[in-house]
Amino acid sequence: MSQKTIFNLKENLLETYNVSLDYHGVSGKRLAERLGALSKIGLTEQNGSYRTGFSFEEKEAKELVMKWMKEAGLSVHQDGAGNVFGRLEGKRPGVPAVLSGSHVDSVQNGGHFDGPLGVLSALEVAEAWRETGFTPEKPFEVVIFSDEEGSRFHGGLNGSEAFMGSGDLDEKIKKKDINGESFEKVLQDVGLSLESYSNAKRDLDDIETFIEIHIEQGKRLEKEELPCGIVTGIAGPQWLEYTFQGEAGHAGNTPMNDRKDALLAASEFIIKLNQIPQQINDTAVATVGKLHVEPNGVNVIPGKVTLYVDIRDIYEESRDTLVNRIIQLGEEIGVSHKLSVTYKETLKSPPVPISEDQQELLEEAMKVNGIRPYRLPSGAGHDAMVLGAQIPIVMLFVKSRDGISHNPTEWSDLNDCIQTIHVLKTYIEKLQY
Amino acid sequence: MSQKTIFNLKENLLETYNVSLDYHGVSGKRLAERLGALSKIGLTEQNGSYRTGFSFEEKEAKELVMKWMKEAGLSVHQDGAGNVFGRLEGKRPGVPAVLSGSHVDSVQNGGHFDGPLGVLSALEVAEAWRETGFTPEKPFEVVIFSDEEGSRFHGGLNGSEAFMGSGDLDEKIKKKDINGESFEKVLQDVGLSLESYSNAKRDLDDIETFIEIHIEQGKRLEKEELPCGIVTGIAGPQWLEYTFQGEAGHAGNTPMNDRKDALLAASEFIIKLNQIPQQINDTAVATVGKLHVEPNGVNVIPGKVTLYVDIRDIYEESRDTLVNRIIQLGEEIGVSHKLSVTYKETLKSPPVPISEDQQELLEEAMKVNGIRPYRLPSGAGHDAMVLGAQIPIVMLFVKSRDGISHNPTEWSDLNDCIQTIHVLKTYIEKLQY
Repeated sequence: MSQKTIFNLKENLLETYNVSLDYHGVSGKRLAERLGALSKIGLTEQNGSYRTGFSFEEKEAKELVMKWMKEAGLSVHQDGAGNVFGRLEGKRPGVPAVLSGSHVDSVQNGGHFDGPLGVLSALEVAEAWRETGFTPEKPFEVVIFSDEEGSRFHGGLNGSEAFMGSGDLDEKIKKKDINGESFEKVLQDVGLSLESYSNAKRDLDDIETFIEIHIEQGKRLEKEELPCGIVTGIAGPQWLEYTFQGEAGHAGNTPMNDRKDALLAASEFIIKLNQIPQQINDTAVATVGKLHVEPNGVNVIPGKVTLYVDIRDIYEESRDTLVNRIIQLGEEIGVSHKLSVTYKETLKSPPVPISEDQQELLEEAMKVNGIRPYRLPSGAGHDAMVLGAQIPIVMLFVKSRDGISHNPTEWSDLNDCIQTIHVLKTYIEKLQY
Repeated sequence: MSQKTIFNLKENLLETYNVSLDYHGVSGKRLAERLGALSKIGLTEQNGSYRTGFSFEEKEAKELVMKWMKEAGLSVHQDGAGNVFGRLEGKRPGVPAVLSGSHVDSVQNGGHFDGPLGVLSALEVAEAWRETGFTPEKPFEVVIFSDEEGSRFHGGLNGSEAFMGSGDLDEKIKKKDINGESFEKVLQDVGLSLESYSNAKRDLDDIETFIEIHIEQGKRLEKEELPCGIVTGIAGPQWLEYTFQGEAGHAGNTPMNDRKDALLAASEFIIKLNQIPQQINDTAVATVGKLHVEPNGVNVIPGKVTLYVDIRDIYEESRDTLVNRIIQLGEEIGVSHKLSVTYKETLKSPPVPISEDQQELLEEAMKVNGIRPYRLPSGAGHDAMVLGAQIPIVMLFVKSRDGISHNPTEWSDLNDCIQTIHVLKTYIEKLQY
């Protein structure tokens, strides 16, 4: 019997579930069943998830959720980008809707929580209302955005960008997927088209707020021993590509005091860079993750180093300060090591802060549910980042075991998920007044 | 007309030659002609030299030098490893011989001085003696060692090792050259065999001393504005392969104070390592030339870094001290960064010191020729390193322009070469008494 046939996400989730969390119509068993059912679509040999954006697996997952949406009494429709909406009319049908959800696509051999948990949590709120006979004042929509991960085209958020009308379609058209297929062909394969995609933009006056539940993909909540936390903003990444141009030479014949060692200069840059973010604020981060040495020979002094700096913060102003300090550092290193240090910007995404009012409302919702309010930034991008550029957003992070994600071992306890859904439900109910 | 046909090493060398250096039978024109003639064998499109060890080009170069040796009155023979000897009997034929020379093979697209200058300088001494009617007391042999560079089998010194009986033939037999040919086949192609190679060992009682003239391949003599310098020893390289095992993580979602960044630890190691050699002595060097990051993604905290340290000194004891300090540094970095730092030794060649007596005799020879004696270590290996493990050796370095070697632009001025030959001649004459 292979490992794959033994894997049972539903049973694994329910094993440690505390059923006393089933109240106000929220059901741990239902959520576990649904996460389990989705996990079987695109299940890999390593028990991971393989549901690329705009794949048949993503489509199948959407269709299953649409079935559940209908069973929960929602009216379902799909837009031209494949985004799925399950709508519950409120007592006041003309007013803007509250929107909540996430995505069901995954990276190659990813986990079963990143995306699906956000969609099914929103659906669980609708289920709970139906069971308790509650009808909201405002319309409520559960949403599945297409192709969030972007593992197919090395650039995701394709569903939410179509919804907001914010993507650059000319750029997308140029891309080829890992099999060499165009964006257009990939859309056609799942019954969409470039035309339908470009017509998917929603009238933003229809939407009051978007709230997304997502796994943290970090270890802060685990350290704090909290089921969930309030996201303070989504850090936009800025990437700088640096070139340190020194002088290659024989490692044996060049005295220590007569070298222009590019790696030595780069090392000092890396160490000093690491100290800057904490001097600015505790949401800022800067990382050198990628580095190449030339000629990269054991007995050759490095002549050239190329490295990439990933810089993030949830506030544009402090990220700019951070970037400026890093650029200044590069200049200083060039002077002190007597070599050329140059850079170019290869990516700049705006950070999306979340309004203090929304965070306070979420804090009240957490207190109602007996959870200590804790705030943390999001370092990674999400669909909420795309929506947040134009409309109010809120995000709730759920504790991730060991901070692992994009991996079959990605895990969030069902107790934590259900507690977070209670917070979501309370929050949306508070939004009605 | 291509650049290749314009190139004329002889004319280029003679252009700035000071003919007043032609005295005591030494001739700048003859040396320039011979360097020029050798440069045409295996000349590349970039005006470099391509005479791999055991190639037809190396063989042709040896045959040309053998012709000159015979014209200079030397009795010529070749051993089973293709090493060439031109012998001048002394007045006392039974005593051990003084040996001088180098090699005529080159790296791919190398220069025209690395090797040939040492061979032709020794031959020039014999020519000068013939012109001035001088006969030494002791036999003198001009030598060409086969395949010094090892660009064919990624491991050179094959001629000098056969001569000393010090190589590991079992290891050599396993090697394949860049065309997939075995060591045995390559020997056969130039009329040699494994049997003849293994019988090439010379009776070391026949040899008193070996002296090698070689270009510096560094910039010390250029800085000192000296034609040549006394080599104090040949630094044996020791290589350590280090692994820094941290923890990969999302560059956005992992706070700065909760990281185990392998590249950050490696950077501190590189910076502190760089400061150690100068604390030990001014011949010691340590270099990180090769480094790999894993997973090497712009937005991923480096989980693992593999790097290689090249450590050299001309004294075994101080090199051991240096290695121990580096190992201690690695341990300290592991503790302070809370990650695993491990290493393994991948190479350890013994340094070859040169006796103080020999250096002092060479110093006298320099003073006689009006050159300020200057001492410097050899960071790279040479045939003299192989011989020096068992018999007395001496080395003289000639100034290299910009320290460049293994490159078509490798250059030493004829004035510097000829001054060095005068020193060599004086030194060998001093050895007669």
